[in-house]
Amino acid sequence: MVALPSVDAARDSRVRELTRAHVFTSWSAQAEIDPLPLAGGEGVWFWDHQGRRYLDLTSQLVNVNLGYQHPRLVEAIREAAGGLVTVAPSFAEESRAEAAAAVAGLAPAGLEKVFFTNGGAEANENAVRMARLHTGRHKVLAAYRSYHGATAAAIALTGEPRRWGAEPSIPGVVHFWGPYLYRSEFHSSTPEEEAERALRHLRHTVAAEGPQHVAAIVLETVVGSNGVLVPPPGYLEGVRELCDEHGILLVLDEVMAGFGRTGAWFAFDHWGVRPDLVTFAKGVNSGYVPLGGVILSDEIADTFAHTPYPGGLTYSGHALATASAVASIRIMREERVVENAAEVGERTLGPGLRDLAERHEVIGDVRGLGVFWALELVADRETREPLPADRVKAIHRACVERGVWPLMMGNRMHVVPPCVITSEEAGEALTLLDEALAGATA
Amino acid sequence: MVALPSVDAARDSRVRELTRAHVFTSWSAQAEIDPLPLAGGEGVWFWDHQGRRYLDLTSQLVNVNLGYQHPRLVEAIREAAGGLVTVAPSFAEESRAEAAAAVAGLAPAGLEKVFFTNGGAEANENAVRMARLHTGRHKVLAAYRSYHGATAAAIALTGEPRRWGAEPSIPGVVHFWGPYLYRSEFHSSTPEEEAERALRHLRHTVAAEGPQHVAAIVLETVVGSNGVLVPPPGYLEGVRELCDEHGILLVLDEVMAGFGRTGAWFAFDHWGVRPDLVTFAKGVNSGYVPLGGVILSDEIADTFAHTPYPGGLTYSGHALATASAVASIRIMREERVVENAAEVGERTLGPGLRDLAERHEVIGDVRGLGVFWALELVADRETREPLPADRVKAIHRACVERGVWPLMMGNRMHVVPPCVITSEEAGEALTLLDEALAGATA
Ligand SMILES: Cc1ncc(COP(=O)(O)O)c(C=O)c1O
Ligand SMILES: Cc1ncc(COP(=O)(O)O)c(C=O)c1O
Repeated sequence: MVALPSVDAARDSRVRELTRAHVFTSWSAQAEIDPLPLAGGEGVWFWDHQGRRYLDLTSQLVNVNLGYQHPRLVEAIREAAGGLVTVAPSFAEESRAEAAAAVAGLAPAGLEKVFFTNGGAEANENAVRMARLHTGRHKVLAAYRSYHGATAAAIALTGEPRRWGAEPSIPGVVHFWGPYLYRSEFHSSTPEEEAERALRHLRHTVAAEGPQHVAAIVLETVVGSNGVLVPPPGYLEGVRELCDEHGILLVLDEVMAGFGRTGAWFAFDHWGVRPDLVTFAKGVNSGYVPLGGVILSDEIADTFAHTPYPGGLTYSGHALATASAVASIRIMREERVVENAAEVGERTLGPGLRDLAERHEVIGDVRGLGVFWALELVADRETREPLPADRVKAIHRACVERGVWPLMMGNRMHVVPPCVITSEEAGEALTLLDEALAGATA
Repeated sequence: MVALPSVDAARDSRVRELTRAHVFTSWSAQAEIDPLPLAGGEGVWFWDHQGRRYLDLTSQLVNVNLGYQHPRLVEAIREAAGGLVTVAPSFAEESRAEAAAAVAGLAPAGLEKVFFTNGGAEANENAVRMARLHTGRHKVLAAYRSYHGATAAAIALTGEPRRWGAEPSIPGVVHFWGPYLYRSEFHSSTPEEEAERALRHLRHTVAAEGPQHVAAIVLETVVGSNGVLVPPPGYLEGVRELCDEHGILLVLDEVMAGFGRTGAWFAFDHWGVRPDLVTFAKGVNSGYVPLGGVILSDEIADTFAHTPYPGGLTYSGHALATASAVASIRIMREERVVENAAEVGERTLGPGLRDLAERHEVIGDVRGLGVFWALELVADRETREPLPADRVKAIHRACVERGVWPLMMGNRMHVVPPCVITSEEAGEALTLLDEALAGATA
């Protein structure tokens, strides 16, 4: 465990004051928040200016897969800062080229080119544009209970209330229901049934929209901020088949699920499905420098071999960002970070969270794999009524008081620590969660 | 002048090869480009792996306002890399708060809050969303001959061919014609006439769209990549008045024009106009780490005091990026970089470029201020017919051969060096341009 951080009350209140006066915060009612100033971090720990440290189960926004301030990644950034940090896309640059090769090297054969962006939303924007131009078709299907980012096309794909404030957005996006056994839209009672019925529903939706008008189906491989919804066996394979049948492209959003989070480099590796376009961000370099991108199949890249691709951005392939991605992928490989995420999930987090569910009535469902888990909190196990917001908040408070910080999303507790978490640290987190749940629901 | 760079042919070809195999490049036909690998830079110079250095008149994509590898900015990034580099928007963080205070401190009174993004497109996306929600109106007016970024809402604002491949995009954007005396849409013959007629045209367009339905007018304060179009006296003031008359918000895109480029912190400072929303990126930290954002008027920020703002991104207020902005603004202030840009423009670049125009028939118009200039290249001064693409290319080649690298955009040569350029360096650039123009048009 890291040393106890020092107390600096003056700095704490100065940061709060400046933040209140000048920072306009994402997704927030500005006058109703008073965000905690963070002071530092190391490994799976972060701390504030008040002398308190927290065992992190958030990875910030599920992005610091390598943990806080990984010394080798920090060193790589410092070194890269001494070279050229920013190079326009019209030039070539070594770390950009190496990062593209490294990212493509993790994808299935036949996906060899990478278009870099600054984050996940821009990646999805470009994936949609590529899919439309490659197919010459206009419609895009995306799932309810999904998040794909907040720029106009990305938010149009998004299948949850965060979209509402941005409507009307781009035309042509149609939403369908994905598999979610715990609250099945299809009245299923087994994963197999849910997969089969969700596929049938998707097939009907494609037919109702006209398959020859559908450019792409966009899916989070494992749905992230809407509940860590792991697709039941057969589902993704079935979507791939449906796409193939109709010449529809499969776009898999691996922004949150990619780069170790599920215990695999890409979440789709678990099901052996080959997408046509992959979008990524977050874990590619643990967000140490903003970076995202799209991996393109050779067929799609070829569409733009002699026809200019109509899209771009100033920092596409930013040298400092891509240098950090090269280093991050190397570190993950050498330190077996992806394997660690798989092992901790299988041996410690999964069993431990299921064990918590046995002892706490408030946990209605446990879902996940790797270091990507959610506990669904309910007021009543029979009716599955979501736990009211104030009780969710109370549970979060109880955790924070005990020095463990989970990510609350709606009526769920997401347990998404850095992929470098050890089994001991995961065990410690489970103990603290157990105490907090006991305390808050007593 | 910097030392002659070393030759590394193996590295040069390795970077080219990896780039060709794996990098998907912005705005390009992928098989038809072979971008030059850059190896390093310092001040206003960059160099390749073949032992050639270039006096930079591009600032990459008009973003390295502080020049290449400014030692104090590099040091600040290295130092910040040792703290927390990435903090979710739901927490507070010192450099985010300080950067917001510093950026707001440069804006007029009454614009106190800053929403951070990764780049310019995301900034404009959010400005449009804020404007629509604040006014409850749907339409947005933007200018032909403008570029605002390539995500769906930003490209919808864009008023040039880069938009075409992304259509249909978001609904509700209406384009009008802005002032451009050299190719006046309004048959004007003086700047005063152009300002007055362009304003009358905008007034008519607003009336034709229904002023009560117009949320915002979005303008690049000085149009950048579409030609360095400096608004004639009275134009921006007139747009502000028109907005006030109808409760329309004025959104000024300072992504390219801001942070010293025009010899002022913001280009609108030249005309004393107070916008309601300002979008920025590039020069805020010279692009050393991807960063952009929106500065909000207090009235607009207040709309989201108790109603959540429906927008956000993982890296809003990224700690490493904002730390570099804090350092960059401090350096620009302490080293009088904005003043330098104004002086070099007034004393050397402006007169020197006008002098070039006297001696080279191919230059039809010279426009700009600060270190933000364009030469419009024509086949015929009388008809003003744009110089054909192959001749523009030949001029660029002639420049590059002589070790000076201007930014070619359509039939224009943009002369947009880092704001730290000295008068001597500007003089040297002018001499090289003179020789190149003579050589290429002989
Ligand atoms: C699955 C998914 N896609 C896209 C995004 C958007 O990424 P960004 O916030 O970097 O724009 C997110 C962000 O949380 C995400 O979880
Ligand atoms: C005026 C203007 N606005 C917006 C943008 C888009 O910025 P970005 O490329 O960072 O998305 C640019 C980029 O060149 C620009 O010049």
